[in-house]
Amino acid sequence: MPISPLAVAFPRLLPVAGVRFATAAAGIRYRGRTDVMLAEFAPGTTVAGVFTRNQCPGAPVTWCREILAAGQARGLLVNAGNANVFNGIAGMNAVRSTAAAAAQALGCRSEEIFTASTGVIGEPMPAERMVAVMDELAGRLDPDHWDEAARSIMTTDTFPKGATRVARIGGVEVRISGIAKGSGMIAPDMATMLAFVVTDAAIPAPILQSLLKSGAEPSFNCITVDSDTSTSDTLLLFATGQAPHPPVQDTRGLVGFRKALIAVLHDLAQAVVRDGEGAQKLIDITVTGAVSARSARRIGLAIANSPLVKTAIAGGDANWGRIVMAVGKAGEPADRDRLAVAIGGVWMARDGQIVAGYDETPVVAHMRGLEIRIAVDLGLGRGRAQVWGCDLTHGYVDINGAYRS
Amino acid sequence: MPISPLAVAFPRLLPVAGVRFATAAAGIRYRGRTDVMLAEFAPGTTVAGVFTRNQCPGAPVTWCREILAAGQARGLLVNAGNANVFNGIAGMNAVRSTAAAAAQALGCRSEEIFTASTGVIGEPMPAERMVAVMDELAGRLDPDHWDEAARSIMTTDTFPKGATRVARIGGVEVRISGIAKGSGMIAPDMATMLAFVVTDAAIPAPILQSLLKSGAEPSFNCITVDSDTSTSDTLLLFATGQAPHPPVQDTRGLVGFRKALIAVLHDLAQAVVRDGEGAQKLIDITVTGAVSARSARRIGLAIANSPLVKTAIAGGDANWGRIVMAVGKAGEPADRDRLAVAIGGVWMARDGQIVAGYDETPVVAHMRGLEIRIAVDLGLGRGRAQVWGCDLTHGYVDINGAYRS
Repeated sequence: MPISPLAVAFPRLLPVAGVRFATAAAGIRYRGRTDVMLAEFAPGTTVAGVFTRNQCPGAPVTWCREILAAGQARGLLVNAGNANVFNGIAGMNAVRSTAAAAAQALGCRSEEIFTASTGVIGEPMPAERMVAVMDELAGRLDPDHWDEAARSIMTTDTFPKGATRVARIGGVEVRISGIAKGSGMIAPDMATMLAFVVTDAAIPAPILQSLLKSGAEPSFNCITVDSDTSTSDTLLLFATGQAPHPPVQDTRGLVGFRKALIAVLHDLAQAVVRDGEGAQKLIDITVTGAVSARSARRIGLAIANSPLVKTAIAGGDANWGRIVMAVGKAGEPADRDRLAVAIGGVWMARDGQIVAGYDETPVVAHMRGLEIRIAVDLGLGRGRAQVWGCDLTHGYVDINGAYRS
Repeated sequence: MPISPLAVAFPRLLPVAGVRFATAAAGIRYRGRTDVMLAEFAPGTTVAGVFTRNQCPGAPVTWCREILAAGQARGLLVNAGNANVFNGIAGMNAVRSTAAAAAQALGCRSEEIFTASTGVIGEPMPAERMVAVMDELAGRLDPDHWDEAARSIMTTDTFPKGATRVARIGGVEVRISGIAKGSGMIAPDMATMLAFVVTDAAIPAPILQSLLKSGAEPSFNCITVDSDTSTSDTLLLFATGQAPHPPVQDTRGLVGFRKALIAVLHDLAQAVVRDGEGAQKLIDITVTGAVSARSARRIGLAIANSPLVKTAIAGGDANWGRIVMAVGKAGEPADRDRLAVAIGGVWMARDGQIVAGYDETPVVAHMRGLEIRIAVDLGLGRGRAQVWGCDLTHGYVDINGAYRS
């Protein structure tokens, strides 16, 4: 597949003290590329996680949820090509055997190894292929291999995704760097993808969890590609504790850190939606005037997930009628006669009807661009949300009609 | 567009005493075809209706809801090409003026004229074009013009849709005939389309309403094309009271009638989904073992609406992993380790994993057919549902990326 026209360049990710990466080609499904990534964390690393809400999660998700309670991590093992989902007891055995191999290679306990898998569902996981490359992986861990790590976890992604920020805690600089992969089956809650973020800050696991959970809301939980929710969604945040800042007791003093973390999560989520399968246009939807922020987000996602809105945008059609339809289908409070709709900053409809003298010319020009801005005002309250999606194209049909073959 | 490969022939619809039809080319949007339909009902005709749950309904829906309370109908006026949605007060004025013109032509009150519109949203409704053909319409009403009526209300439909049955009430034969149009923006509740059914039975409006509401559940409320919910969905049932059966006091004695009515609604709903925009394959989904029938239906619709399931089927890929994903995303009770999935009668996965020795050959052959049968058993309870959808193809993207242009 050609690289998405919405691609953003992979930034130079700041190395983070206390984490090293290695990748290998285990031949799980793909040939001629890396498909396994191992990360090693310094002793004392804390961890937070947010996972898919799909009722049929993969074995790696089940495993991560179990070990997350302890809040400690020494390693992360990720593969692409096989999601290890719906493999019954064999799936959990595959997780245990690969985690055990990674633990042995890193000199820690299995329960300190987090795992994630992405790819086809329901095919037996060839764990032995991952185990076979474990020593090779452990032998070439490198703090600077962010780019390689990002590439090794891609499936139908057309570009690697990374983000990086610095912040200060108690006057001491800390770093936050992360990678992610998409690119179909992306819908809240939470957004369906793999993302791994590492900071050298020293933050107790419960505080880290609270930061991650709230940070996922305006980022990963506000993007959608196709309304489908993966069985494997995993967002993990590791804090290696290597930065020499004063101890963190609570969230006071973490204002700057939180802001930087949200910026990283936002960048990663944006990169995921920009690489939505077949996407040719980014859709940026702002909903205002809803009865609540939650209602606004639901309305925004109804618009972003509407096949009719998405195909209209693919076709360059400023079809605000379908936006009205999608607002109405959300099941949230809406008053047809107070509704206003804008595309590209031009209000086309207000108070339940087309704006008098509406001139489509600037809107048509906007529709030719790569980033389509839709604004909807409900006129009911102060609820506001911003969500992001992408268009529905022939590329999506092609990719997903032939993914396994 | 070529005719859907899933098309069914338009049956010979039985004329129903007490209803006559006429169609005309008003040039509302389309050229060279009929786009307006007028039906006249005998005095004393009762009516029942079920409408879209979209929060931004069109003016005709608002009008029908208002006048339905009286339970009486003398006429039905329908147009294709303009949905008369989101036109503010002008939209309601258009309904009033066309209903008034129809009432004058048929010699009744405006409040006895039901209206429905389908087509583009948010464009002013040229009511005067409909008014201009009203006398022409009234001058050539004919009880046998079902086929013409069905054709005049089509939008992106590729074939006209009709269904007919006979039943007995108190030993006297009654007829039920109906027409419908689809074919995008089809999702419950209720199914998003226009359907008009007429019987010569004499049934009080409250009983008729109850029959229609329950009949829509296993038919129109179990189909979906694209998860989008139209602003204009309208299902109306008219009873002309011309059949000489004994008076109906309650639903006792209507067992046969109810069965025939459901058969008509089922046929029409099936025809709609078979003409889903771009559809190349019908998807027939049976969900069993859910905690309730409602839960089963939601799971079935989550499968039928999943873009990843729909594109896999378009590509002939027996990708049961995506079916598992869709079950899990429905948000309904599901236990990954009890789940079973079959395609074409072949159980591929049971108890949370692939069936030992699963041979894909017969399933691959089934996937090449026009009708794909999916069965899911949750293993939790006795809830059961059957729903129908269609695949997501390049045709859908083509049609909806260029609908207005």
